[in-house]
Amino acid sequence: MDNLKKKYQHHLSLESASREYGPFQMLGRIQSDSDIKMLSFAGGEPNPSKFPIHKLSVSFPEVNSWEKDTNKDATVSYELSNNANEGSLDLLGALQYGQCQGIPELVKFIKDHVGQIHMPQYKDWDIKITNGNTIGLEYCLRLLVNRGDCILIEKYTYPAAITAMRPLGVKFIPIDMDENGMLPESFEKVMETWDSSLGARPHVLYTIPTGQNPTGSTLTLERRKKFLTLAKKYDIIIVEDEPYYFLQMEKYDANWKPDKQAFNISSFKKKLIPSLLHLDTDGRVLRVDSFSKLIVPGLRLGWITGNSLFIDRITRYAEVCTESPSGVSQVVLYAILNRWGQNGFLEWLQDLQNSYTMRRNALLLAADKHLPKSVCKYHSPKAGLFLWVELDKNRLICSNMDKSISEIEMEIFVELVNNGVKPVCGQLFMGEPNSADKIFFRFAYSLADLSTFEAGLERFTSTIQKYFQL
Amino acid sequence: MDNLKKKYQHHLSLESASREYGPFQMLGRIQSDSDIKMLSFAGGEPNPSKFPIHKLSVSFPEVNSWEKDTNKDATVSYELSNNANEGSLDLLGALQYGQCQGIPELVKFIKDHVGQIHMPQYKDWDIKITNGNTIGLEYCLRLLVNRGDCILIEKYTYPAAITAMRPLGVKFIPIDMDENGMLPESFEKVMETWDSSLGARPHVLYTIPTGQNPTGSTLTLERRKKFLTLAKKYDIIIVEDEPYYFLQMEKYDANWKPDKQAFNISSFKKKLIPSLLHLDTDGRVLRVDSFSKLIVPGLRLGWITGNSLFIDRITRYAEVCTESPSGVSQVVLYAILNRWGQNGFLEWLQDLQNSYTMRRNALLLAADKHLPKSVCKYHSPKAGLFLWVELDKNRLICSNMDKSISEIEMEIFVELVNNGVKPVCGQLFMGEPNSADKIFFRFAYSLADLSTFEAGLERFTSTIQKYFQL
Repeated sequence: MDNLKKKYQHHLSLESASREYGPFQMLGRIQSDSDIKMLSFAGGEPNPSKFPIHKLSVSFPEVNSWEKDTNKDATVSYELSNNANEGSLDLLGALQYGQCQGIPELVKFIKDHVGQIHMPQYKDWDIKITNGNTIGLEYCLRLLVNRGDCILIEKYTYPAAITAMRPLGVKFIPIDMDENGMLPESFEKVMETWDSSLGARPHVLYTIPTGQNPTGSTLTLERRKKFLTLAKKYDIIIVEDEPYYFLQMEKYDANWKPDKQAFNISSFKKKLIPSLLHLDTDGRVLRVDSFSKLIVPGLRLGWITGNSLFIDRITRYAEVCTESPSGVSQVVLYAILNRWGQNGFLEWLQDLQNSYTMRRNALLLAADKHLPKSVCKYHSPKAGLFLWVELDKNRLICSNMDKSISEIEMEIFVELVNNGVKPVCGQLFMGEPNSADKIFFRFAYSLADLSTFEAGLERFTSTIQKYFQL
Repeated sequence: MDNLKKKYQHHLSLESASREYGPFQMLGRIQSDSDIKMLSFAGGEPNPSKFPIHKLSVSFPEVNSWEKDTNKDATVSYELSNNANEGSLDLLGALQYGQCQGIPELVKFIKDHVGQIHMPQYKDWDIKITNGNTIGLEYCLRLLVNRGDCILIEKYTYPAAITAMRPLGVKFIPIDMDENGMLPESFEKVMETWDSSLGARPHVLYTIPTGQNPTGSTLTLERRKKFLTLAKKYDIIIVEDEPYYFLQMEKYDANWKPDKQAFNISSFKKKLIPSLLHLDTDGRVLRVDSFSKLIVPGLRLGWITGNSLFIDRITRYAEVCTESPSGVSQVVLYAILNRWGQNGFLEWLQDLQNSYTMRRNALLLAADKHLPKSVCKYHSPKAGLFLWVELDKNRLICSNMDKSISEIEMEIFVELVNNGVKPVCGQLFMGEPNSADKIFFRFAYSLADLSTFEAGLERFTSTIQKYFQL
């Protein structure tokens, strides 16, 4: 920890640097020397004899019965009065205070998962269970950012991240991107030609490396390595937001069918692009993970992985913020993961990948068929839920040329909605929407009815006709 | 809202004043003029066909079977594939994104409850469901407080509140208290003799009016009214933190037995002391409520009630912070509350009151029997979970007089732990522990084994002997 402090203490925000554990932790360290049985009147927890939740049950598919009927679901129940619940989970403990660190069995499962998938290459890493990625990012911001700081973001990024950052008084420094994610040279240029009138040089980079929202791009392995080298060189902390990491897909092939062969763990793992967390050798990556896309959003559960200095500071904050994620959510998630096991969980993720691959392929097929090549440019996403379509501004019909790019884009968007098709316009993903210099639309293929993909893109094409020379 | 803005906009923190809704809200307002069926590719929500949680069940006591055996518990189940779930709850909706406002049926239940119990006397009030009171307070702080602000707190208060406030760079201005809560004259003196070298005069008062933690005091009705008048006079926002509000109790009577008569709602309501929220006529009270003491802490559910300007700003923050409380928790809580109904819920609270009254009485009986009257001073709490015992510093044995009060208190605490009894020492409840001028210990009667109450207080008395002239 001393080493970490020396290395990273200066990255802590004013707020985070002054965070202390609550006084009860301090009190807890005062122990009796004798072996007298302690009569404690310290804790103000409510009395569990008056907990009205006596039993919780959850039904879910067994491993490898993903496609089968729900009558064969497993049902796992936990009882308040039972000390021998499945996976030895203590329901009373889960319903009481004091779970800020998370239910120990669930935390162990997640830590084992991280060890298996990301194999962090430094010693002092830890995890903190969270109420999902939204607060995961909030924790990272409160940890690292002071009012007036500049923060590096991808040129197009997750709108809720922008909405979260702006009121904290940060200034956005966008990094240029292509279909393979952020450009290292854009990052280097920002750092080397830093305009000090903007304030101190940024020390935080926020990125969604895999299946990026909204661009669908995935940072290549080569660039991942390059960014870690640059992070070290310029003393940058990377916040790696990875809700789509496990939604990686095979290369697009219109004739693709899911592999019905027995699930192979090592080939599943080998196909995953190494995470920034894995490539990080000295604890500069704070990785934010979520169960929202992997199980369900309504659990509001996720976790952060990082060096133990940062995780400790985040935990101090969590104790006076959320206190802990829902114990009920944790019990339900644990019931499922414990029954599935590490391998069963990965097998479930493989099934998810197949499901979204099928959806991506259907949208790409429709796009290839219906979007006019002369105006629309897009790449096959290698992960995630989004197709990012650029409309060539050089082919705009001249009558539109007196407006700004973002005005034109918004006008097209309104017209699309009027014609019954609704993607999201690119400027919503920018820190400074008015600075848009290209026209983009994001199509999510996760939720829409597959049968509407063709009609949707047809409507798109027929709407943009009046704006572009096709 | 315009009226509220005029009145309260200046109370918003820098951060809160600049909070906007996310861009998706804005997009949502762009609608088609035609009645064409919209083909939406906007939302990146995961596909519910891949939600592995197929069914959730919870077992809990039926109304008025609180004392009976768990074999007669009600079990309520919600199924993903069932559109006719009990109370017409939509499990799929609860497991998906987009529940930041809370599950509509649960929010309605809570709003009805607030209307029934607190009957706010102004029009523009609203509630925001939260992940419990810890984050409830955090929301209020982020809403109202800038770095460098001074904040009014009770002289002794909830330690986690202090731990939450300190890193935000606030300065604590304590208000003196007695067994009936804060002293209005202490508040007035602070405001009238404000030392401007400390910064601007405080505009926020944080209080736990009922069954206060740690003092067990309950602010009298007269003082409640006085504080609201003063709040108006000095333009103060009151944050009313009320986890113990429903744990109000009959006057202490060693022979008390719970009333086995049929539950009477109107007499239950009439016995509750009017809340600050109820007495507030113009929206200056932000009331923070929690289900932790009423159902279980592990649900991590609560709510904030206040004027709709404040609730709207808190909601904007929640959307990029927790997003929503756990949908799974909300489903479980709704299952119980919907089955119980408003009256059944109050009947449950009556049973809770009885249970804690019995515990309070047992501790008071033991205290009357074992604590030396010459040194120990305490009052019977009218609510909550805590007995607050003062040790008369004027009777300290002289050899201790070269130490500060907080040093002496801590020394006694360490000795108590060594002798196998553990209350909490008073200084832990102070913004500035070193400024302690009296010696206090807090005894929680909520969790300890009833059979240890006498032995605990005996150990206490035998330990303090060497410090005091009994």
